[in-house]
Amino acid sequence: MSKILILGGDGYLGWPTAMYFSKRGHDVLIVDNMIKKHWESQIGVSPLFNLQTLQNRIDTWKDITGKIIDYKIFDISDNHKQLYAVLNDFQPDTVIHYAEQPSAPFSMMSRESCYETQRNNVMGTLNLMFAIQSVNPNIHIIKLGTMGEYGTPNIDIEEGWIEIEHNGRKDKMLYPKKPGSFYHLSKVHDSANLEFTCRVWGQRVTDLNQGVVYGVKTEETVLHENLNTSFHYDSCFGTVINRFVTQAVANKDITIYGNGSQTRGYLNILDTLRCVEIALENPADKGEFRVFNQFTEYFSINDIAKKVSEAAKLSGLDPKIKNLSNPRIEQENHYYNPKNSALIQLGLKPKNLTITVLQEMIELVKKHSNNIDTDSLLPSILWKM
Amino acid sequence: MSKILILGGDGYLGWPTAMYFSKRGHDVLIVDNMIKKHWESQIGVSPLFNLQTLQNRIDTWKDITGKIIDYKIFDISDNHKQLYAVLNDFQPDTVIHYAEQPSAPFSMMSRESCYETQRNNVMGTLNLMFAIQSVNPNIHIIKLGTMGEYGTPNIDIEEGWIEIEHNGRKDKMLYPKKPGSFYHLSKVHDSANLEFTCRVWGQRVTDLNQGVVYGVKTEETVLHENLNTSFHYDSCFGTVINRFVTQAVANKDITIYGNGSQTRGYLNILDTLRCVEIALENPADKGEFRVFNQFTEYFSINDIAKKVSEAAKLSGLDPKIKNLSNPRIEQENHYYNPKNSALIQLGLKPKNLTITVLQEMIELVKKHSNNIDTDSLLPSILWKM
Repeated sequence: MSKILILGGDGYLGWPTAMYFSKRGHDVLIVDNMIKKHWESQIGVSPLFNLQTLQNRIDTWKDITGKIIDYKIFDISDNHKQLYAVLNDFQPDTVIHYAEQPSAPFSMMSRESCYETQRNNVMGTLNLMFAIQSVNPNIHIIKLGTMGEYGTPNIDIEEGWIEIEHNGRKDKMLYPKKPGSFYHLSKVHDSANLEFTCRVWGQRVTDLNQGVVYGVKTEETVLHENLNTSFHYDSCFGTVINRFVTQAVANKDITIYGNGSQTRGYLNILDTLRCVEIALENPADKGEFRVFNQFTEYFSINDIAKKVSEAAKLSGLDPKIKNLSNPRIEQENHYYNPKNSALIQLGLKPKNLTITVLQEMIELVKKHSNNIDTDSLLPSILWKM
Repeated sequence: MSKILILGGDGYLGWPTAMYFSKRGHDVLIVDNMIKKHWESQIGVSPLFNLQTLQNRIDTWKDITGKIIDYKIFDISDNHKQLYAVLNDFQPDTVIHYAEQPSAPFSMMSRESCYETQRNNVMGTLNLMFAIQSVNPNIHIIKLGTMGEYGTPNIDIEEGWIEIEHNGRKDKMLYPKKPGSFYHLSKVHDSANLEFTCRVWGQRVTDLNQGVVYGVKTEETVLHENLNTSFHYDSCFGTVINRFVTQAVANKDITIYGNGSQTRGYLNILDTLRCVEIALENPADKGEFRVFNQFTEYFSINDIAKKVSEAAKLSGLDPKIKNLSNPRIEQENHYYNPKNSALIQLGLKPKNLTITVLQEMIELVKKHSNNIDTDSLLPSILWKM
């Protein structure tokens, strides 16, 4: 059993990850600066159903399981001293780093939100790299990246690295990126910084280039309603599946940006947890900057809309699908062939996006349908300034 | 004649650039935050000879040429409002952006110096991108990058972009980078951010991936000693040619890091000015992220040491060459074949690093040899934390 520090441990993925590893006997410490609530308030959105405070969730967790998850509230991008102190005191084997502004639209909203995204994400990760180098360079960093770092190149997407043959010579290079927002760029910068500290300082890093996660139920969240994680359905922090499901429940059109051919990788939150566990159990070597493409299936937006529509009909709803002018600037018709064999070779058994999974999501949203703010479902942030 | 805003216009390149374009009838406005002096003080170094204040240099320039260079003192990374205001008031055609922390060793010195390097450089450039998008997206940004963004890959170095053929398909991608310090990484992040705003917002950017610049004499600096630009010879802000020349004059060993096979691109400051002029006269297209590799020759460190030694002997000196344990973590024996044809095709006529040029530098340093702080010649900052 190991010691696991989870940065951003209050978040949508952070909290389920904390319970997942606590349940399995690991010693888990959460760090979070609680800034997400502030960001949500700025744009006037909130999760579909109320979350218990982190403190209450941790209390409930202890009541139910007898296990203690500890936590510290501070900002790793701004308070490096406390980060050094926490690493020194806790001496983790692994740091799981989710402590980043996670929304592409948020990063495109204004100069301020772009600045804050790159400042928070890039500087927080820099502080982590220095803290680990100072306290114990053997600590394995598991860092949440995104498939969106790659964009939609016209060649196969490899896992982080690519062998390039050029003018008769070869080299293994970082896979060149075509990120689609200032948020995605912040993760590209993180990856570049982390590859450097692996190469030069011998750090150990696993960069998880994750697809779009869906689902809120895990083995642990279902133990008690106080243990729920957040469900964002708005056009800023909500991902496409949540948004479509919520539109269906609210008897609104399912709104596709552009022609809907845009294709992305997806995975169930249960697979996220298992992927992080696989990375943790098989740490990167000293000096290795290892990249896993963390998704299990890929779909076009049209595929997703059709699936949600089908599930909705089985649940007695009848949503229409409508195409909106695309608020983003992105390729709609594009080649997409991303590789994801590394995690599967290490034992991941993907759970697919079935109609049943979508029906469960629909039922969950129905229970809280009074809370839906339909205004927040439509895009309000444009990529074009 | 055009309006040119020079960010970092007090610096080693900024000041000669300001005079160069002022002389040729352009309307030049300098912005600088004067932070460089603060950074120099932190590590206890200063240029070889005293610089006049920017205000005095501007006064002398006016006395001699009748031309006015205006200036504003503020920090673009921290004061976006003033940056917007200056762009609005001045309405430049071109922004030449030198306003970055320029030293690799400085960025590797400590968490603080790394953080400050990436914060200053990346956030300053973000503010510029937003300011231009707000005021006039047609403004051409000429941004100083570095050849060090590429590192030493085992394949030919193209100019910013590379056509990759992979599994039978092709795409034009940003050339993958292997930067060698947090400073170089900051420029990689800038390049990624700027490529995005060209692609998504239609901005016009020329990224000048510059080699190591040498020389302090330009047509304008020689008009009056008050118009000098800075000469750094220390191991933090001084580049290798300046350092070797100063070691020779101070009767110290010329100290090579490691085996001296490390090869880099170089150019004369006169060519820097001409390259920037070529970029300015041939602006990037709307939406084009254009990269020029801005160097004229490449040499190994051993080549440079031999050339400086030869020039020194002709000037009556007799330096020995000594190999030091390499304070940096870098490849010493490596392939190096960087392309630089774009600027030459646009009319650059390279000036080579001749023994005569080095003798002129030696004579200059001799004049100020009393000021040499020999302690600062040896490396004090290690890449290994």
